[in-house]
Amino acid sequence: MAVPLEFYFDFASPYGYLASLQIDAIAANHGRTVAWRPFMLGAAFKATGQTPLPDQPMRGPYHRRDFARSARRFGAPFRMPAPFPFIALAPSRAFYWLEGRDPAMAKRYATAVYNRVFGEGRSVGDPATAAEAGAAIGIDPAALTAAIQDPVNKEKLKQMTDQAIARGVFGSPFIFVDGEPFWGHDRLPQIEEWLARGGW
Amino acid sequence: MAVPLEFYFDFASPYGYLASLQIDAIAANHGRTVAWRPFMLGAAFKATGQTPLPDQPMRGPYHRRDFARSARRFGAPFRMPAPFPFIALAPSRAFYWLEGRDPAMAKRYATAVYNRVFGEGRSVGDPATAAEAGAAIGIDPAALTAAIQDPVNKEKLKQMTDQAIARGVFGSPFIFVDGEPFWGHDRLPQIEEWLARGGW
Repeated sequence: MAVPLEFYFDFASPYGYLASLQIDAIAANHGRTVAWRPFMLGAAFKATGQTPLPDQPMRGPYHRRDFARSARRFGAPFRMPAPFPFIALAPSRAFYWLEGRDPAMAKRYATAVYNRVFGEGRSVGDPATAAEAGAAIGIDPAALTAAIQDPVNKEKLKQMTDQAIARGVFGSPFIFVDGEPFWGHDRLPQIEEWLARGGW
Repeated sequence: MAVPLEFYFDFASPYGYLASLQIDAIAANHGRTVAWRPFMLGAAFKATGQTPLPDQPMRGPYHRRDFARSARRFGAPFRMPAPFPFIALAPSRAFYWLEGRDPAMAKRYATAVYNRVFGEGRSVGDPATAAEAGAAIGIDPAALTAAIQDPVNKEKLKQMTDQAIARGVFGSPFIFVDGEPFWGHDRLPQIEEWLARGGW
């Protein structure tokens, strides 16, 4: 059986959100599944010297326009969350906790978080909002809040982030197809073609 | 008559080279022309704090792979030039000198320079190589070398670069379609769609 595509993203990444709306369908068109992998993009930025796009001179205004234009292009809702950027530790830890129990639920949770952040424009940067996002899809808020504080889940996220950086992941989204790295929402057409042709 | 698309690029930019191979055909499909606009990307980097991609930690190795992969995808020759990066003052000044006399020749010159740089892997960073690239398509090397040193042409390139930065151009390629900004070779499909739909 083919290995899943690996979809690395940060919950505070607009292009990660846009990719999250399409990646499963692209993979399914080619009989493939996707492993979702939230990680802490800020840790990668320390390695590359980059900073969040929206606040950079020149690049920030362009990308804010491009986020909205790219979303509009395929009819996705898009709002910049406030505050922004935010540190997505809480929902990322919650994701891995859920994944250990019910991978399908973990993906539903990630979808709910992204919808809240960039569909509705509400940051999910603390345990209370991370629990709220889960409660909306039937996850017990007390259990989720406890999981966010659990050293086991903290360590899991740290490991996944370290592993991502060790593999060269420096942005969001960052997708591996059978080991081939693709960075950026705008690489989705190439990923489709890579899957169809088996590379080139 | 519709205004030309404006195609800003730096002669040392791999993605600018890839865009140069496609942009005229994309525009022509929609009855449009393209004004080619070399500028000094390094000056924009001073404003944004960016540095040339290939030498950045993590991002460099990825992009070197992506340059070649993106070229291979549509059958374009690609070699990284040595030395790299280089400062493309000489061919950029020569371009504007030529454009003032014969715009079609200026575009042929730009194509010859890009082919030499990323098709053959030979930097065009000094007046001698800039003249060589011109001589190959019938431009008098002595006249081109003199033009590169002419304060009028130096000033013209400076003005075009200042104007680009004032308009928000921070990368290469950077393309305006009726004022709408698109950054990156990977935005060409969006540009095609923008032209076809008249925006969205």
